[in-house]
Amino acid sequence: MTQENSVLVVGSVAYDDLEMPTGTFADVVGGAATYASISASNFAKVNLVGVVGDDFDKGFLEKLAGRGIDLAGVEHVAGGKTFHWSGRYSADLSSRETLDTQLNVFATFQPKILPAYKASPIVLLGNIHPALQLDVLNQVESPKLVVCDTMNLWIDIERATLGKVMEKVDLLVINDEEARQLSGIHNITKAAADIRKQGPKRLIIKRGEHGALYFDDAGVFFSPAFPLETVLDPTGAGDSFAGGLIGWLAKNGLSDASFRQAMIVASTMGSFCVEAIGTERLLSANKAAIAARLDAFQTMCDFGGKIPFHA
Amino acid sequence: MTQENSVLVVGSVAYDDLEMPTGTFADVVGGAATYASISASNFAKVNLVGVVGDDFDKGFLEKLAGRGIDLAGVEHVAGGKTFHWSGRYSADLSSRETLDTQLNVFATFQPKILPAYKASPIVLLGNIHPALQLDVLNQVESPKLVVCDTMNLWIDIERATLGKVMEKVDLLVINDEEARQLSGIHNITKAAADIRKQGPKRLIIKRGEHGALYFDDAGVFFSPAFPLETVLDPTGAGDSFAGGLIGWLAKNGLSDASFRQAMIVASTMGSFCVEAIGTERLLSANKAAIAARLDAFQTMCDFGGKIPFHA
Repeated sequence: MTQENSVLVVGSVAYDDLEMPTGTFADVVGGAATYASISASNFAKVNLVGVVGDDFDKGFLEKLAGRGIDLAGVEHVAGGKTFHWSGRYSADLSSRETLDTQLNVFATFQPKILPAYKASPIVLLGNIHPALQLDVLNQVESPKLVVCDTMNLWIDIERATLGKVMEKVDLLVINDEEARQLSGIHNITKAAADIRKQGPKRLIIKRGEHGALYFDDAGVFFSPAFPLETVLDPTGAGDSFAGGLIGWLAKNGLSDASFRQAMIVASTMGSFCVEAIGTERLLSANKAAIAARLDAFQTMCDFGGKIPFHA
Repeated sequence: MTQENSVLVVGSVAYDDLEMPTGTFADVVGGAATYASISASNFAKVNLVGVVGDDFDKGFLEKLAGRGIDLAGVEHVAGGKTFHWSGRYSADLSSRETLDTQLNVFATFQPKILPAYKASPIVLLGNIHPALQLDVLNQVESPKLVVCDTMNLWIDIERATLGKVMEKVDLLVINDEEARQLSGIHNITKAAADIRKQGPKRLIIKRGEHGALYFDDAGVFFSPAFPLETVLDPTGAGDSFAGGLIGWLAKNGLSDASFRQAMIVASTMGSFCVEAIGTERLLSANKAAIAARLDAFQTMCDFGGKIPFHA
């Protein structure tokens, strides 16, 4: 099969225990690669590279396969247990704390990129150890776009290795706190300029419910977050955002205009994610629902073209 | 003179003492009506109603008059001192505390709307006691649009009177914390629906550096805040926003499309305000600077029209 419009997603597949203001939810399927793959699969063929243990729900994997997500790259460790994260969210869902992390099979995860995946033109390096991200980049064959996520932990303890990753990626996707940490600069516009000098020509800074900024040589683009009446679980919203982004780019090409559209699509996919616990709403959002929300999103941003003001 | 395209601004004219991360600034000209009037004067004739003491800088008043701001409605209290506010901002400018408030001549302020002002089609009720806001509404002659600001203090201690104001205003402009307080609802979309049932058909919820939402019968519109490299003083940004909004509406009419454009113009004017201490940058932003920033603003929001996705 041609990999022409495919994306390669490398990252965690997990079970999450979630203590939410609305209740406690155990063994919820999660993981960055899971959310990103589901989201991207609305727009592109997805090649998923991750690892699970014996305990992982086979029915869920079938659901993913049914969406055109190729699971040949998902390693099954016999006798192993799937990565398990437990967290508690604040009452307004604006912050969370980790209660427990059981890496399990993820502790020794060494991403193996299948020969069929190596030609995927778009690669999403999920938030894994920067050395593993480098390892993935050594296995793939000159992708057109490498997108990279990371986190405060790696910025803290693996800054040098992360620096090498940043030199090789085209688009870094981080949140505002990570941007400040990575640059040592509080002002987001200045932080963005500094980070782009560290490697990635393109940069997205996510601000949760406050939208996301995209920086490239042409300037800055802003996508709001879609205002929602129901927000139940922010887990995976950033990964759903990244998945929508790469899926859209795989389908529509890598022009500057396409990146801007991809920002709106990414925000739209993130908005579905938070409406239910785990991946439930992301899975139920069919093409009609996505088209309807994209319409509503564009209406929300529409001020009728050029504003008539002249000096 | 015809009042056809004029706006009436009622509110505080003040001196502020500002403790900023960048230094301490004493006797800075401020006040909601000052900021709003300067901002609006880029687009419309402004009739200003406020009060000052003997101590107020006549040179500054001349500067306002030079911008076409009618000052006949600014009362001078002989022997009185101008309203004086002192505040301290946090290191990242995201919050502030009041150190001292000297109401002075503002304590007994009774807005008198001059006969020539009564036909102003657009009225901005600045953040003053709701009873005074009602008093202003009793003096004006069926304006086409009444815009109203308020604050946590009045929501706390003058809820009933504020309720009467809300029944009479067309557009309420508040921040997200005030929206939550006014509705008792945390979710902003639900809070907006609740507040609109309390009176104002149109509602703007400001979120500072995270932009602003506008709600009307047609739905929701979002304007981002313009990302800036230099942010020195948020004082008056919300008032500059309101001034840009009413000025634009006075110049361009009250269609739904005009309100959406006005949101972008309002955000643009707010963005100038914060770039210097007090009103300095707002005063120096000429038509060329406004046009240039409006262009940059629109580029930041431009994703090339309709996103090609179909169910």
